[in-house]
Amino acid sequence: MQPFELSLTAAAGEIKDGNLSPRELTESVLDRIEQTEDTLGAFAHVCGDLARKAAARAEHEIAGGMYRGPLHGIPLGVKDLYDTAGVPSTSSSAVRAGRVPDTDAVAVERLLGAGMVMVGKTHTHEFAYGGLTPTTRNPWDASRIPGGSSGGSGAAVAAGSCMVGMGSDTAGSIRIPASLCGTVGLKPTYGRVSRRGVASLSWSLDHVGPLARNVRDCALVLGVIAGFDRADTGSVDVPVPDFTAGLDGGIAGLRVGVPSNYFFDRVHEDVDRSVRAAISVLEGLGAELREVSIPYADQVLAAEWAILMPEASAYHQDALREKAELYTEQTRVLLEVGELVLATDYIKALRVRTLMQRAWADMFADIDVLVAPTEPFAAPRVGAMEATWPDGLAEDITMALVRLTSPADLTGMPSLTLPVGFDDAGLPLGMQVIGRPFDEATVLRVGRAYEQVSDAVGRVAPVVPPKG
Amino acid sequence: MQPFELSLTAAAGEIKDGNLSPRELTESVLDRIEQTEDTLGAFAHVCGDLARKAAARAEHEIAGGMYRGPLHGIPLGVKDLYDTAGVPSTSSSAVRAGRVPDTDAVAVERLLGAGMVMVGKTHTHEFAYGGLTPTTRNPWDASRIPGGSSGGSGAAVAAGSCMVGMGSDTAGSIRIPASLCGTVGLKPTYGRVSRRGVASLSWSLDHVGPLARNVRDCALVLGVIAGFDRADTGSVDVPVPDFTAGLDGGIAGLRVGVPSNYFFDRVHEDVDRSVRAAISVLEGLGAELREVSIPYADQVLAAEWAILMPEASAYHQDALREKAELYTEQTRVLLEVGELVLATDYIKALRVRTLMQRAWADMFADIDVLVAPTEPFAAPRVGAMEATWPDGLAEDITMALVRLTSPADLTGMPSLTLPVGFDDAGLPLGMQVIGRPFDEATVLRVGRAYEQVSDAVGRVAPVVPPKG
Repeated sequence: MQPFELSLTAAAGEIKDGNLSPRELTESVLDRIEQTEDTLGAFAHVCGDLARKAAARAEHEIAGGMYRGPLHGIPLGVKDLYDTAGVPSTSSSAVRAGRVPDTDAVAVERLLGAGMVMVGKTHTHEFAYGGLTPTTRNPWDASRIPGGSSGGSGAAVAAGSCMVGMGSDTAGSIRIPASLCGTVGLKPTYGRVSRRGVASLSWSLDHVGPLARNVRDCALVLGVIAGFDRADTGSVDVPVPDFTAGLDGGIAGLRVGVPSNYFFDRVHEDVDRSVRAAISVLEGLGAELREVSIPYADQVLAAEWAILMPEASAYHQDALREKAELYTEQTRVLLEVGELVLATDYIKALRVRTLMQRAWADMFADIDVLVAPTEPFAAPRVGAMEATWPDGLAEDITMALVRLTSPADLTGMPSLTLPVGFDDAGLPLGMQVIGRPFDEATVLRVGRAYEQVSDAVGRVAPVVPPKG
Repeated sequence: MQPFELSLTAAAGEIKDGNLSPRELTESVLDRIEQTEDTLGAFAHVCGDLARKAAARAEHEIAGGMYRGPLHGIPLGVKDLYDTAGVPSTSSSAVRAGRVPDTDAVAVERLLGAGMVMVGKTHTHEFAYGGLTPTTRNPWDASRIPGGSSGGSGAAVAAGSCMVGMGSDTAGSIRIPASLCGTVGLKPTYGRVSRRGVASLSWSLDHVGPLARNVRDCALVLGVIAGFDRADTGSVDVPVPDFTAGLDGGIAGLRVGVPSNYFFDRVHEDVDRSVRAAISVLEGLGAELREVSIPYADQVLAAEWAILMPEASAYHQDALREKAELYTEQTRVLLEVGELVLATDYIKALRVRTLMQRAWADMFADIDVLVAPTEPFAAPRVGAMEATWPDGLAEDITMALVRLTSPADLTGMPSLTLPVGFDDAGLPLGMQVIGRPFDEATVLRVGRAYEQVSDAVGRVAPVVPPKG
């Protein structure tokens, strides 16, 4: 096994024990990037020199007895939506070409402060406004999309091009690529992690969080990035627990909700089978399954888009006036359409969201977590526009990608996705675990219980070049 | 002194001591209504029979030793915006003509549960969408407006046609009529009192609260109506203290903010003089005055209207489609204009409001309350369209009426208005006391300290018919 194949937790163990140095690890990862990047296109910018310096500094500190903890010396990829001091931060858009911020986003500042080694900026679907990430390919099959918008982080983490990739999630943008690339991904509770320094897509729906090789790694990262930030108007001042403390406590007696509607409607049979098998595994571990009915299911996508679109247009309004031609056409059109949304429609969507949040809270009176497919299918082929379902419905790919992830963005509830298997083509399939607001600890505990008995979690993708 | 001239507290004392019966009090109030209503037009509906029955029941209960507390047997006027079971509730609009709800609004239910005697429904500017209340006249001079939208409650409380009038406040609708009619009025913190069963004007700005003859009366009413209600999506689950407990504790050492901008700009010289004199009184009582600068002052009205208008239009959208012709033209046009507001503009106003709330919280780090004029002038003449200021500006009357009251609606902070004097024409002038969210106790304590040394509070208007 080469160092780049290690998870954060595994690499940290080796570093702490003196079996691996941050420089060796970083070189292994940078080599991996060099070998795979032509195929993957996961990075908007690779900062090898900066990474080597940071790795050397980490090595020096650790050798000097100043070990900062498990993140120290571990390679990190950061979505290009995040500001990174002295490193180009363009949101994968020509609109921000050449932009180099002076300061780090809060989450980046904290991770670098914990000693992480940033190896590069990962590609996002332009300004996070899409689920495809057209710059990037899926490491399990390069003829397929990685998902998005955090597609670069998904591809990079799955390929071994970093141990942790930071993402953001407004309609599913952490969990979509995590599911399609076979990584773990955590969208924390709305307000849990500061978004300061991260380009906004939709301020009342935006979340930032990690993609990593396993659940424990996500818990470690969350512990570092979580916390109140008065400068983020969505931030909530709640205590931050040690998310690793009860992680291995098991799930005996835990009430696991299984949706009877919405989440298993129009999902591929492989997804249905794999997720239901994973749910049986949870039952075998002592969880108590409870069937629940998802409220306001038929209004999820309408509310999501009626909120997201005008909020995105408000954020981009000045830039759209000044340099519309620099946006890709798809983004520009979405931003222009969002400008036509009436306030009354937006207000009605906010009202529906509030009612939805209350109804989900009621639903959670009887369960501790909800489990469901993350995506209705494995990674689609590059260029696929629609998914066709047995009932004849041809569903737009982007709509399908966000269909099962949007509820946790609207409700603000934490959602963890993790791989639960592979389809016949060898493509990974994901299950999400949704919890109560600010109860990431339980969500992580469920994921951790599963990954300890499954071999689906933690695999590094072979990076197969496109066929033909 | 006749019974109708008594305040809630005074009447309750007489009732408790057996010197006055609820029936005597109610008959006195109903007589007063009969004598003044031709001039005032304060009531959309007077329910004499219902009131007499309730008064008889209260008298019976009290005689039987079942005294419910100081509200028991006290006449109450309820703004027609509130639902009242079995009593017409039309929001003073032809759109709801003949509408008789089955249930009481939560606030009404609680007040009736405390033994109050509802004597009638007071007029509102149609659906609370205006500050004039054209149905109603000012009891100090019937050629003048009572203000609004809770104009009927303001006129009725000031005239002695009830001891307490319930109002609602979205841009100032409790405090405007309280100031112009010379009563005390309290807009509680956003989320403090349930709005369930009260027609909405703007759900993120609407507050309900009392108008009464003095500060103590308002504290008593607030104690009954305050409390979490899950069915009101704006309601906040915070403890409800006894608002009368520290009411007489004085204000020695209290830090009272005096605004250096905005609140004293373009106010009539009588207002300026009276409010500054009242502030000196507070200083004489031991308060420490601190000059403060109001943040985001130039964006108050833009934010207020950009939020209020589309929220009102969203609430009324179906009715506007079905029976537009039943709205008065002014309301209909406002609702139609609100339908044209773009979501991006509304979103920007929400952002400004959030920043404003934060900046006001910062300002309150150095002060305990803020004091300021409630209205820039005494009650305008009926039909006046503009106020003209010495700098030449001609300001629309409605804009002027809400100019100084809107900040507390946008920030959600509690604001109490109380009379601080009269102009040469004998018209009352008001000062508002604004406090931290959910700190009504301090706001009330300041008002109470003032009213104990002033003869401006608590006067009953003579009800002068229009001249000529």
